[in-house]
Amino acid sequence: MLCFCFVQVLSHAAAAESSSLVFLCIHRQHYDFLESLAPQLKGKVLVDVSNNLKKNLYPEANAEYLQRLVPGAHVVKAFNTLSAWALQNGPSDANRQVFLCGNRAEAKQAVAETATKLGFSVLDRGSLSAARELEDFPLRLFPEWRLPLLIAIGLSAFFFFYLLIRDVVYTYVVQGKDISFRIMVSLANKVFPIVSLIMLALCYLPGIIAAILQLYRGTKYRRFPDWLDRWMLCRKQLGLLALGFASLHVFYTLVIPIRYYVRFKIGAGIISQIKENRTSEFDNSIAWRGDSYFSMGILGFCLFLLLGITSLPSVSNALSWREFSFIQSKLGYLTVFFCTFHAYLYGWDRFLRPSTYKWFTPPGYMLSLIVPSLVLVFKLLLLLPCVDRTLTRIRQGWERCDPEDDSKKTLLT
Amino acid sequence: MLCFCFVQVLSHAAAAESSSLVFLCIHRQHYDFLESLAPQLKGKVLVDVSNNLKKNLYPEANAEYLQRLVPGAHVVKAFNTLSAWALQNGPSDANRQVFLCGNRAEAKQAVAETATKLGFSVLDRGSLSAARELEDFPLRLFPEWRLPLLIAIGLSAFFFFYLLIRDVVYTYVVQGKDISFRIMVSLANKVFPIVSLIMLALCYLPGIIAAILQLYRGTKYRRFPDWLDRWMLCRKQLGLLALGFASLHVFYTLVIPIRYYVRFKIGAGIISQIKENRTSEFDNSIAWRGDSYFSMGILGFCLFLLLGITSLPSVSNALSWREFSFIQSKLGYLTVFFCTFHAYLYGWDRFLRPSTYKWFTPPGYMLSLIVPSLVLVFKLLLLLPCVDRTLTRIRQGWERCDPEDDSKKTLLT
Amino acid sequence: MLCFCFVQVLSHAAAAESSSLVFLCIHRQHYDFLESLAPQLKGKVLVDVSNNLKKNLYPEANAEYLQRLVPGAHVVKAFNTLSAWALQNGPSDANRQVFLCGNRAEAKQAVAETATKLGFSVLDRGSLSAARELEDFPLRLFPEWRLPLLIAIGLSAFFFFYLLIRDVVYTYVVQGKDISFRIMVSLANKVFPIVSLIMLALCYLPGIIAAILQLYRGTKYRRFPDWLDRWMLCRKQLGLLALGFASLHVFYTLVIPIRYYVRFKIGAGIISQIKENRTSEFDNSIAWRGDSYFSMGILGFCLFLLLGITSLPSVSNALSWREFSFIQSKLGYLTVFFCTFHAYLYGWDRFLRPSTYKWFTPPGYMLSLIVPSLVLVFKLLLLLPCVDRTLTRIRQGWERCDPEDDSKKTLLT
Repeated sequence: MLCFCFVQVLSHAAAAESSSLVFLCIHRQHYDFLESLAPQLKGKVLVDVSNNLKKNLYPEANAEYLQRLVPGAHVVKAFNTLSAWALQNGPSDANRQVFLCGNRAEAKQAVAETATKLGFSVLDRGSLSAARELEDFPLRLFPEWRLPLLIAIGLSAFFFFYLLIRDVVYTYVVQGKDISFRIMVSLANKVFPIVSLIMLALCYLPGIIAAILQLYRGTKYRRFPDWLDRWMLCRKQLGLLALGFASLHVFYTLVIPIRYYVRFKIGAGIISQIKENRTSEFDNSIAWRGDSYFSMGILGFCLFLLLGITSLPSVSNALSWREFSFIQSKLGYLTVFFCTFHAYLYGWDRFLRPSTYKWFTPPGYMLSLIVPSLVLVFKLLLLLPCVDRTLTRIRQGWERCDPEDDSKKTLLT
Repeated sequence: MLCFCFVQVLSHAAAAESSSLVFLCIHRQHYDFLESLAPQLKGKVLVDVSNNLKKNLYPEANAEYLQRLVPGAHVVKAFNTLSAWALQNGPSDANRQVFLCGNRAEAKQAVAETATKLGFSVLDRGSLSAARELEDFPLRLFPEWRLPLLIAIGLSAFFFFYLLIRDVVYTYVVQGKDISFRIMVSLANKVFPIVSLIMLALCYLPGIIAAILQLYRGTKYRRFPDWLDRWMLCRKQLGLLALGFASLHVFYTLVIPIRYYVRFKIGAGIISQIKENRTSEFDNSIAWRGDSYFSMGILGFCLFLLLGITSLPSVSNALSWREFSFIQSKLGYLTVFFCTFHAYLYGWDRFLRPSTYKWFTPPGYMLSLIVPSLVLVFKLLLLLPCVDRTLTRIRQGWERCDPEDDSKKTLLT
Repeated sequence: MLCFCFVQVLSHAAAAESSSLVFLCIHRQHYDFLESLAPQLKGKVLVDVSNNLKKNLYPEANAEYLQRLVPGAHVVKAFNTLSAWALQNGPSDANRQVFLCGNRAEAKQAVAETATKLGFSVLDRGSLSAARELEDFPLRLFPEWRLPLLIAIGLSAFFFFYLLIRDVVYTYVVQGKDISFRIMVSLANKVFPIVSLIMLALCYLPGIIAAILQLYRGTKYRRFPDWLDRWMLCRKQLGLLALGFASLHVFYTLVIPIRYYVRFKIGAGIISQIKENRTSEFDNSIAWRGDSYFSMGILGFCLFLLLGITSLPSVSNALSWREFSFIQSKLGYLTVFFCTFHAYLYGWDRFLRPSTYKWFTPPGYMLSLIVPSLVLVFKLLLLLPCVDRTLTRIRQGWERCDPEDDSKKTLLT
């Protein structure tokens, strides 16, 4: 039941040195056996690689519990974030990083050297109090993506059923025509851009709420409410999901002219034009509007792609804070502007026609325009010289002279 | 012939400290000169930056040979993976990382500090026994891509000639029509998706073979055969190549409606329809099928892109093992499913028509469906509750009670 | 005015140790207050997190000035590259890296441990002389992108007005027709590929100039002129901008068949064909040419995308120098070839028709072909066996026997 596994894969020179390293690969419930071995383990480096099956199963981290059991040994938590596959076959692409933590620098150094020799790259996470975090890491499954995913799924489901009723059911009920085939491409290509635009705007809304809150409070030294903090922390995920939906929209749009339905309709249009001997005039303003609509969409999407690329860890690490915020804020608002303008051009004068409001409901694109329009209007207000000046001063530490507690100032100047 | 180059680019403070660092930039065949200098070099840090023109030219690494010649010096292998350009002009984007190895920690520290001051980031690769690996690094040219590339080229060549005969040669021989222009787009757009789908399935086949092998053996403590190990290690490259082919397929497909041939054919179709006064009915089921076909393709490709993005080193490093395997396995099988379904929808009822089997050969898309269908069927079988339960238990370390050697168990629990 | 902020966010164990760390968060102009505190600060680690509002405001870096004021303390420059947001809320995606520098290793170690405990990853940039660089970092705003951006904007503006006059103004003046709507898509889709191709070629031109210079000089041990060095250092940015323009070109092209103008024109063409009872013959050579044109474009763009992906920091870090130069050089020239060929196929026999030269000006695509054609011709010349052999020898260190100063040789062999 108890097994000390000395890793065999070390090179010869390394193996000679590592005799004082003990790798512990047993489950936590068997740790109490070790208490009796305490004298033999004294001064040794105990490498705890254990993981739990669930979060918060025990009050303290396995490594801290081990350290308490064998106080004479130097416990180092390491290698637990690796897969068994990586431990057997050496570092692969997904598993090059070994996190470790421990109270004694020499012990950590010894483990780090072993890991380095095996080809891993080591990241020191500090003292043993970080063990809990390291033990929770392998159980993590996109925690920060959950809220954005829920929002995306919720919005998609709502707009899918909304548009299903407005487009397919309405046509079936009123005109008695079955256009259910439109679900696969046409309907999807309405849902995706709507959700994408709303989620893109949701990335920039919290920043605007924060600015208004700071203006109202006259200081930056008060914490934002929790919901705002949480919202701000998932902006990146919101944005990336929005980019995913935008990409789907792009592909669904580009595939349009190959579709059977579209080809059939165009052919039928030309045939009926000939049979009825009609001549249609080329309308310059439609051409202008349509081409601007495509241009805005393409520019918006390309800027959006750029935002996505700069949020790759290796790219954003190479940027200074000023560069990162320039791209994510300045270019980000430009992206919102282009995409919103794209949607307005799509709508054009459609909002004037009564036929647009089937069953007295507004079309989907109108609903999608509410949040981004609000974001843009408020951003414009915040850019007014007088507002902008006050906000900049507040962000540089200035406070409107309220008889406030001064203790907050000393925290962060 | 012999030259000690003291790097001149150091800042003043650094230069004063580094006087005990000797950078050795001579070819290995001139190292014997150094033996006579051994007394002067005693205690100094010798930085070996040499590289060889070929692999395995000498029995031992240059740095190890040097250490043997001058045992009193502390040899550190470093900087050899950098280009001359980076050494002259300072770190550029491609060359920020300096690998080093050596037996003495202080010597490595001194070299690491110099490298840091020059703006490089240092990666310690352990003792001098790693020197061989460092010396082989600059000679490396995509070793892990070779097998996948060979497979890709082989499959592409086979399907190109197969389809050339079936499409172009057959038409020429039987109908006497020269449609050789179809090679450039139409034929390419058949070869690329076929090869892509087969290679995508080849990524997931070894995992299924491994699972079957584990079920058959009743244990996970026996090594897989060598060919399977090698296959599993190049899955990432197989997948990325498949993604490349899929991207080509996407571009070749989207370009279809701009092609002269397609425009001509559509125009001719409409004209003949008018002249013969035919009226074609809109077929709902064709619309459903066509749109589903496009939808599946787009969803499959977007998921495939996601797999590709998460295989970027900086992204996969930020993921926990559970997250990485969720994406690469769960979403991976979903991708295979979407893409296979896409191909089935393309085929539809074509397999029933005798005209499909020109010269008694099956069309290309049928051949491409064999491997992915096998993968999906076996995956479904492995997901059956009874099979899945056994497999999970085997992977958690359980063994079917065979009178086996127990020594394997102790290696990795 | 004076405030010592002890960071409160540390874990308990860490807080106990860090009592000797003093974080200094005041503006440089208030540093003189510290001179009187010198005795109390003796032996303490002073962490300077200050930033300036402009570059080169003071003759020496803030941290160096501080060290001079309080010589007994150990000044470490750190945390200044982080945003206030990251300091308050812990490391986020854009802000995981803490750069530090200082003269005393122990002091740096102490600060590094604190940063590690807070979840940041630390990068040591050497002695305090690096402080200036660290203080300039937050003020950086894409310095290396400026020249390439200027070139891109200049070229775009020039070609926009050039084509505006040739296409829109010419048609208006000569035929009296208003086709201004073409600005949004058709004109943009001419400007983008032209600028992209020229900038792609500009990436490879300096390498060719450098080779010719080395051949002419007969040695590699002489520095290139400054303008060439600067040009070579911004090749990556030039290439990425060219890729951005190429992507825009791709989207603008793929959107063509959905445009109102194109649909109208095709419809009108078919209708007039029927009314005039013309029959158009399918032209095999036009099909060949058009399909090759698309094929070359797609292959060129996909290779270009590959070049872009390998220039991501995390990908290029994983490549050996040989692999990186294989992709950026070999595949790079292949990309230039595909794209140039694509442009030649676009032109085809257009250069023979007098109607092409409106107002005696050559069309835009001709101008775009000058630089890439030069690059390809010179590259072919450099690949001639006799030239290539000499160049390889020069790059391996051989020199044509000129009576030159030998001192250069010793610098870098």
